Amino acid sequence: MAPNDNLTAVLYGINDLRLEQRPVPVPKDDQVLLQMEVVGICGSDVHYLVNGRIGPFVVEKPMIIGHEASGTVIKVGKNVKHLQPGDKVAIEPGVPCRVCNYCKLGSYNLCADIFFCATPPDDGNLSRYYVHAADFCYKLPPNMDLEDGALMEPLSVGVHATKRGKVQVGDVVLILGAGPIGLVTLLSAKAMGASKIIITDILDIKLQKAKELGAHYTIKVERGWQEDDIVEKIKTLLGEEPNKTFDCSGIEQNIRIALKVTKSKGVVVLVGMGQFEQKLPLAAAIFREVDIRGVFRYCNDYPTAIDMVASGKISVKPLITHHYRIEDSLKAFHTAKTQEGNPIKILIHANPNWKPS
Amino acid sequence: MAPNDNLTAVLYGINDLRLEQRPVPVPKDDQVLLQMEVVGICGSDVHYLVNGRIGPFVVEKPMIIGHEASGTVIKVGKNVKHLQPGDKVAIEPGVPCRVCNYCKLGSYNLCADIFFCATPPDDGNLSRYYVHAADFCYKLPPNMDLEDGALMEPLSVGVHATKRGKVQVGDVVLILGAGPIGLVTLLSAKAMGASKIIITDILDIKLQKAKELGAHYTIKVERGWQEDDIVEKIKTLLGEEPNKTFDCSGIEQNIRIALKVTKSKGVVVLVGMGQFEQKLPLAAAIFREVDIRGVFRYCNDYPTAIDMVASGKISVKPLITHHYRIEDSLKAFHTAKTQEGNPIKILIHANPNWKPS
Amino acid sequence: MAPNDNLTAVLYGINDLRLEQRPVPVPKDDQVLLQMEVVGICGSDVHYLVNGRIGPFVVEKPMIIGHEASGTVIKVGKNVKHLQPGDKVAIEPGVPCRVCNYCKLGSYNLCADIFFCATPPDDGNLSRYYVHAADFCYKLPPNMDLEDGALMEPLSVGVHATKRGKVQVGDVVLILGAGPIGLVTLLSAKAMGASKIIITDILDIKLQKAKELGAHYTIKVERGWQEDDIVEKIKTLLGEEPNKTFDCSGIEQNIRIALKVTKSKGVVVLVGMGQFEQKLPLAAAIFREVDIRGVFRYCNDYPTAIDMVASGKISVKPLITHHYRIEDSLKAFHTAKTQEGNPIKILIHANPNWKPS
Amino acid sequence: MAPNDNLTAVLYGINDLRLEQRPVPVPKDDQVLLQMEVVGICGSDVHYLVNGRIGPFVVEKPMIIGHEASGTVIKVGKNVKHLQPGDKVAIEPGVPCRVCNYCKLGSYNLCADIFFCATPPDDGNLSRYYVHAADFCYKLPPNMDLEDGALMEPLSVGVHATKRGKVQVGDVVLILGAGPIGLVTLLSAKAMGASKIIITDILDIKLQKAKELGAHYTIKVERGWQEDDIVEKIKTLLGEEPNKTFDCSGIEQNIRIALKVTKSKGVVVLVGMGQFEQKLPLAAAIFREVDIRGVFRYCNDYPTAIDMVASGKISVKPLITHHYRIEDSLKAFHTAKTQEGNPIKILIHANPNWKPS
Repeated sequence: MAPNDNLTAVLYGINDLRLEQRPVPVPKDDQVLLQMEVVGICGSDVHYLVNGRIGPFVVEKPMIIGHEASGTVIKVGKNVKHLQPGDKVAIEPGVPCRVCNYCKLGSYNLCADIFFCATPPDDGNLSRYYVHAADFCYKLPPNMDLEDGALMEPLSVGVHATKRGKVQVGDVVLILGAGPIGLVTLLSAKAMGASKIIITDILDIKLQKAKELGAHYTIKVERGWQEDDIVEKIKTLLGEEPNKTFDCSGIEQNIRIALKVTKSKGVVVLVGMGQFEQKLPLAAAIFREVDIRGVFRYCNDYPTAIDMVASGKISVKPLITHHYRIEDSLKAFHTAKTQEGNPIKILIHANPNWKPS
Repeated sequence: MAPNDNLTAVLYGINDLRLEQRPVPVPKDDQVLLQMEVVGICGSDVHYLVNGRIGPFVVEKPMIIGHEASGTVIKVGKNVKHLQPGDKVAIEPGVPCRVCNYCKLGSYNLCADIFFCATPPDDGNLSRYYVHAADFCYKLPPNMDLEDGALMEPLSVGVHATKRGKVQVGDVVLILGAGPIGLVTLLSAKAMGASKIIITDILDIKLQKAKELGAHYTIKVERGWQEDDIVEKIKTLLGEEPNKTFDCSGIEQNIRIALKVTKSKGVVVLVGMGQFEQKLPLAAAIFREVDIRGVFRYCNDYPTAIDMVASGKISVKPLITHHYRIEDSLKAFHTAKTQEGNPIKILIHANPNWKPS
Repeated sequence: MAPNDNLTAVLYGINDLRLEQRPVPVPKDDQVLLQMEVVGICGSDVHYLVNGRIGPFVVEKPMIIGHEASGTVIKVGKNVKHLQPGDKVAIEPGVPCRVCNYCKLGSYNLCADIFFCATPPDDGNLSRYYVHAADFCYKLPPNMDLEDGALMEPLSVGVHATKRGKVQVGDVVLILGAGPIGLVTLLSAKAMGASKIIITDILDIKLQKAKELGAHYTIKVERGWQEDDIVEKIKTLLGEEPNKTFDCSGIEQNIRIALKVTKSKGVVVLVGMGQFEQKLPLAAAIFREVDIRGVFRYCNDYPTAIDMVASGKISVKPLITHHYRIEDSLKAFHTAKTQEGNPIKILIHANPNWKPS
Repeated sequence: MAPNDNLTAVLYGINDLRLEQRPVPVPKDDQVLLQMEVVGICGSDVHYLVNGRIGPFVVEKPMIIGHEASGTVIKVGKNVKHLQPGDKVAIEPGVPCRVCNYCKLGSYNLCADIFFCATPPDDGNLSRYYVHAADFCYKLPPNMDLEDGALMEPLSVGVHATKRGKVQVGDVVLILGAGPIGLVTLLSAKAMGASKIIITDILDIKLQKAKELGAHYTIKVERGWQEDDIVEKIKTLLGEEPNKTFDCSGIEQNIRIALKVTKSKGVVVLVGMGQFEQKLPLAAAIFREVDIRGVFRYCNDYPTAIDMVASGKISVKPLITHHYRIEDSLKAFHTAKTQEGNPIKILIHANPNWKPS
């Protein structure tokens, strides 16, 4: 591959994504230079493309997009010991400051100074070449490929959510929303031993996929259904109340259902992003000591995600629905925006030698 | 004292509290017969008196009132070993079923079949004589008196709340609301090692008491103040964000403040009961992994509460503002209802030999 | 079956087990009368038979043997709601006092006044009929049979051990000893998501079974091997250190290996019973913050054990090697004592209608 | 003070401590240059002086001694924001690699690549000038002085031990050994809310100090006393069993007592370093689910230690028994070695302007 061809996808502003050449970066002592391989499109990438911002994070200057990625090590900095050229790695996109209290306490996802790919103003990695902190590159075991590697990012979101919910053997899990986040939460809950999993959505095709991935029960929610009816349907299907509920939709009605349906002393984990202000029956949960926990990205979860796949507990392959070359990034993002063909995970291939299988 | 005089305060309906004679009960094998000594009035008692209900709990038939109580053992059932006549005890008012999963798992407060004094339909203990499960009667250590004993009930609410919030040395604690629940939460947070405690209320007199009990900072909230201004005032006074916040008010604005002001990775504990439906900026807390936890009564907290007082860490005496005899129960409840004289804890004395000191 | 035939296996003293008729018991209000079905033989039963005691527990008067059991409900006490005649149940053999602090805190296995089948002086349930606290009888789901039911007792030991070790996805588990306890620990670790499991023993046949049940690696320890060599072999086979180690042997050398080989910040769980006094390199573990935890029986583990099997995560059937009728109890115990035919689990069938399949 | 006078105490080998001039170091971007102020002598320093090694750590080349220290910031690296010249700081002597799994998981004390002052081959800080990672320098609050600052190191050992033991309100704490580690454990247990503290030693003078610091009970152990008698004495004095036991002696008999006397479901924390091999009745603890936990240095404990003193919960001042100038370091170490005058904490003052008060 051409050593100077660093084709890169840069977001200039709302609906203004451009492909351009950028210089090939040089790794520092603790970094590696990577040949980028597979980069998935995340809902947040589309959000930046369409709205130019997510909450307080605003695209104010051109930003390289992409953060669900795998790559091949090309060159290692002089302090790097656990990697060598040729290693295939999953790339954890956040590199924290390593000196603040959150970093020292093991909650580096809450580090205020974290570098995070494709969260403004930090550049992402949808490009041919990219440098990254070596210790946030995880060598893939032999039975995992580079597509699996890229999917470790969304899976880590599911892992973090289910760790926050302390999912374990015997748990009865409700997942509200069967989009990509709902599905990775499902996979992770399954790997962690959940005994029953029920999932809801408004689209049959998503519930179909959820069943394929291991959901025991599904509910297709029709518009206009009342929340209390949905609560009853969930209990009836399960024959009991779920003790761990994950909202992966951000929808007010779903959060309301979560608060009402979860078993006393259970946990509601809010994974989805929704409206900032919501009208909620908080008392329905708190006087039964149902805890409410949020999630922010992930932290120490990549090793677990990799282990789940490497040990054969789950497969992330069924999440992949579309493939594009980096040259076709605009088409890939068009598909992501329009949801034409019901994409779940769209993968972009940055290696010029990639061939569709 | 007359062995057949079992004067008892019975709630017949809204604003219909009557004193009447009831038969002296007989203890079963695992119970004790108690000469009732001190019974405090709780906000919930007043709620039943004024509204006839709290949420799903409705006074549908005459119910003996009272559940914050201490007594002297008169007689013990044949299986009772740890108590004997003459012992002075604090009475934990809930006796769970002992066979359900919550009981076996150590969360007996969530037992669906719990007997609980003065929660309809269960009778309370504002009477001369009362029988109770012996294992929920805690012998008072020599340096605690019967008034302390009655106050172990509200203090246990504070203990449970601060345990749910895992308060420890170094914590910066915010308490919203300086009513009786706010004050017992403050006492318990102090005993558990909180380093800074800030408390808010709309009444100076309550904040005064909070200071006396150990609050480091107070904020008198004026009507009309905006929530974001209060958030700023809290941060400014502390010089940092609180990492453990307790809402002891149930007021929507306060819960909103709690969600916004609490430090990332901190905890918001909701102790107060308020409107069922509230408009909340949940996202302000959850994307910073601030956990939200409710409380329901208490569980295994009486021994801790007693220990806090017995070991000299805190004193509950300053909470006591009013004393009445059981014969004057209607007056006592009148004071509680009208809040004349700014009562915090009103104690009713059931022992005919009691004399004001 | 004959309503008065209550053939019962009674241990009169060392090597003095007798079959005799006993009256059919009558259930109290919170109990059920059970037709006993399957009763497994445990190492402790054999210990009482051969030595007449285990530590402080001495057989001082005739004691009915048996505590790994399942049964069919014949009659229910008047307070029993969750069971009815005909229900097939797994019987948790310990019934705690329900009033002490351990019971209230959710650690009923440490209750000093617990009734426990076949721990002197409490009678066991190797008999035709038996009464038991209804809430410690767990109805078997449709896809589990009575042999599974009896095996929930040893499996609960494994569940408790692995819960004490907080086994989770990604854990690298070492099990020392492949006897029945080692094998149920292996099954439970697998169900809880352990990623790699290595097990050691001195007998090939046991390691064979361990492989069949899911062990990834086995080590056949030869007499005379040095502990440090075994430590190295374990690390070499795994390519890393185990982070959770379970000693299921009670052997000093194995405990020494556990302390040395476990990864820093890991956990050593001691499941086996061995010599009271042992020479140990405690420092090898404690300065690396490897925690050491023991287990005593189980507590709130039956539901998890049942769920592991019912959800298809594991099967306990491969543990069963021998079947006897209750009439042949002495033969069954002879096999258990002599270990002829390499028994793992020997089941005794108390139902006269049982037929070998 | 002379800007080039960097008088430094260097350990050349067994009993060969020399004072010599060293170049004044230059801080890197994330470091600060400190005027060293107070450096305490630790048991480990004396160990290196007398034996030249502690376990695997051997003094193979000249090593600057000292690690219990405070200093004044002279100069800050360009990335340093939270400190400025003139700030007085407590210096946490370990600086971890920040990239390994232990660092990311919040257990940086177990980092294999940690730099740690005066653990060979890393230099310590008994010198006039010293550079250190800025984020491991903690600015002292106004109500703490530089002697307090130096004592934050031993106090952090106590904090870490009591956090490992999860000491909380209501705990009954036994401390075995009243040397410096026993005393800081006592102070920390007190700050964390322990309700009763009992401490043992063989020297009256140490127990006297322990009482002064807040111990409720003391036991002077006479040589020749049997362990079971000591166990009984502890229970008798307390009127119950301790539920949290800290061995701060490393003596086999004391560890044996800890295993036997601790309450079921309690915790034994081993803080002291003793013989590698010990004969122990492990079963006495593990079958009662008494957990055994070790400690290695401290981790995220400096802020807690500082808070304990700043909030007035405890004072470390009574630990200080001796003062020396850095010029008299050999005398200081002589006192430490001989224990003449029963030293607890010997402080060495590196600031030439220091004057005895």
